[in-house]
Amino acid sequence: MSFSVTILGCNSAIPTVSRNPSSQLLNISERLYLIDCAEGTQVQLKKSRIKLHRINNIFISHLHGDHYFGLIGLMTSFHLFGRTKELNIYANSELEKIINIQLEVSKTKLCYPVVYHCLNYDEPKIIFEDRKICIKSIPLNHSIPTCGFLFTKKNNERSIKKEILAELNIPISELINIKKGDDYVDKNGRVYKNSYLTKGPKSSQSYAYCSDTGYYENILSVIQGVDILYHETTFMEDKIQSANEKLHSTAIQAATIAKKANAGKLIIGHYSARYKTLHPILSEAKTVFENSFTAEDGKVFNIED
Amino acid sequence: MSFSVTILGCNSAIPTVSRNPSSQLLNISERLYLIDCAEGTQVQLKKSRIKLHRINNIFISHLHGDHYFGLIGLMTSFHLFGRTKELNIYANSELEKIINIQLEVSKTKLCYPVVYHCLNYDEPKIIFEDRKICIKSIPLNHSIPTCGFLFTKKNNERSIKKEILAELNIPISELINIKKGDDYVDKNGRVYKNSYLTKGPKSSQSYAYCSDTGYYENILSVIQGVDILYHETTFMEDKIQSANEKLHSTAIQAATIAKKANAGKLIIGHYSARYKTLHPILSEAKTVFENSFTAEDGKVFNIED
Repeated sequence: MSFSVTILGCNSAIPTVSRNPSSQLLNISERLYLIDCAEGTQVQLKKSRIKLHRINNIFISHLHGDHYFGLIGLMTSFHLFGRTKELNIYANSELEKIINIQLEVSKTKLCYPVVYHCLNYDEPKIIFEDRKICIKSIPLNHSIPTCGFLFTKKNNERSIKKEILAELNIPISELINIKKGDDYVDKNGRVYKNSYLTKGPKSSQSYAYCSDTGYYENILSVIQGVDILYHETTFMEDKIQSANEKLHSTAIQAATIAKKANAGKLIIGHYSARYKTLHPILSEAKTVFENSFTAEDGKVFNIED
Repeated sequence: MSFSVTILGCNSAIPTVSRNPSSQLLNISERLYLIDCAEGTQVQLKKSRIKLHRINNIFISHLHGDHYFGLIGLMTSFHLFGRTKELNIYANSELEKIINIQLEVSKTKLCYPVVYHCLNYDEPKIIFEDRKICIKSIPLNHSIPTCGFLFTKKNNERSIKKEILAELNIPISELINIKKGDDYVDKNGRVYKNSYLTKGPKSSQSYAYCSDTGYYENILSVIQGVDILYHETTFMEDKIQSANEKLHSTAIQAATIAKKANAGKLIIGHYSARYKTLHPILSEAKTVFENSFTAEDGKVFNIED
C-alpha cells in the first residue's frame, strides 16, 4: 500500500521559473492529502498527472500567501468541474472569510460543500483519525499562527510470509482473512496456524511537515522517530541572523532537529529565491544529518519501505 | 518606439499545463502596462524575462478569478523585493477589500503605496491620458461588471525622410528638434525647411482588449479602426448557446466584431480548456475575418508597423 509525498512547490515566498512556492501532495493508501496550496498548485498537480477530484482534504499551515494563494483557484476549478463531494479544509479560521469574499464578488455559489476545520496553535492535537491514518497538528514558531502536520499510517494487518506463499497454494479469497488473523484450512482439511503463516504487522509509518518555523525544539516530542521529516530551510548558515529574526530556519538548524528527533530521513525545502542552486544548502544539512535530501518541484519520495 | 503586447496567459477559467488564464503585458514606448493578472502571472512574467519592478500600472477587467487571482502574489513579491514606487491599479472597487484582508491576516504592511482607481461600467471613459498615450475603458456585456481597455499611442512627432538622412550628414543633436518641427541650418549656413526634411506624424496606433464579453455591438463605436483587437473566444460555434447563456463569445462572433470595427488584426483567446488544439477555433474566426491570430502563452505581437 502506497505512502508517498510529491513535491509540488519547494520555494519560499518568491517563485522562480523552476521552483514554485510551498505545496505537497501526500498519498496514503491511495487517499490524497494536499498540504499547503501556493499559487500555481493546480497546474503543478496537472504536471504530476494527479486528478484534482481525488483531493478531499487540504491542510494549510498558515496564512502567508506562499502557502495558500493557490487555494481559491483550485476551489474554483473544482466548482467548474462540477464537483459534488465534500471538501475538508484544515486551516486558520480567517481563511473562510478570505475565500468567501472572493466567491461573493464573482457571484459564485460553489456546487459542493466545504467544511472548514479550525486549527489550534497552542498544543499538538489529533485533527483527523480513522482505522488507517492519524493526522496531528504540530504548533510551530513563526511570525503568525502556524501549524505543521504529522501524518501516521497505521499498519494493522499481519503480512503473509513469502515462503508460505511459495509453499502453499492459498486461494486469493482466503488471503484477506489470514492477514486479519485467521488460521487456514486446506482442501485436505489440514489446519495451518496463523502464527505459522504470517508475521506481525509492521510498525506504523509517519511523515512530518514542518514549515514555516524558526529553530524550535518543542516539536521534538511530537515528531520523535518520524520516518521522513520535511523541515523548512529558508536560509544557509551565513544568514542565521535573518533566519532568527524572521522565524525561519537554516539548513543546519533543520538537520539538528532531524538528528535530535531520530528521523529516518530529512527533506529540506522552502528555499529563499536567492539560492540559484540547491547543492550548497544540502551540503550544509548533510554535515549534521547525512540522510538529507532536497525537495524539488515534481520529485516523489516514498515513505513506505 | 515600441508598441507590443506579450501574451502571459491565453486560457479561460481552468488552466492547462501550457495555457494559463488571462494576463497580457503591453509595452508602449518602454512603459509597461499589465492587463489582468491571473494565477501564475508573476512566473509567466519571469519566463518572458520581464522585470517586475517596471510595472507601475495594472488594469483588471473584472473580478472573476481567472483575471485577478495572481494579483495578490505579484503585489506580495513587489513588497518582498523592497519596491518603493507607487503602484496604480484600475479595477472594481471591491478589489481593494480583497487585497487588504489578505495583507491583514499575514500582518503585511506594503512598503510601497498603492492607488486604486475605480472603474465605471456605464459608459466608456478616459481613465488615463498624458502626452504619449490615452487609455479608455470599454464597458462589456458579462455576468458581473466588466470593462475592456483601449490603449492608444499618440504619435506627435514628425519623422525624418530616409533619403534626407542619406543625403545630409545631420548631427544627432539636431534630429530631435527637426522631429519637433525646426528647420535645419548646415555648417555652411544653408537653410533646409522642415517640410523638405520631414514627413507628417503617423496616425495614432491602438490596441483594444475585450474580455470577457458576450457578442456586444455597443463596443464598436469605441474600437472603430483599432489596429489590433484582442477579443475573447471562449467557445466555437457549436457552443453558441453556452456562449450566449454565460455571456462569452464564439470565434465567429469575435471575428464579426473585428470586421464591423474595421480592425487591422484580430487576436483570439480566453479559450475553454475543452479545446486541446487552437487551430479549429482560428479556422472558424478566419471564415469571417482573415487577419486573425491565436493568443498563446509567451507570444509577442507588435502593434506598431
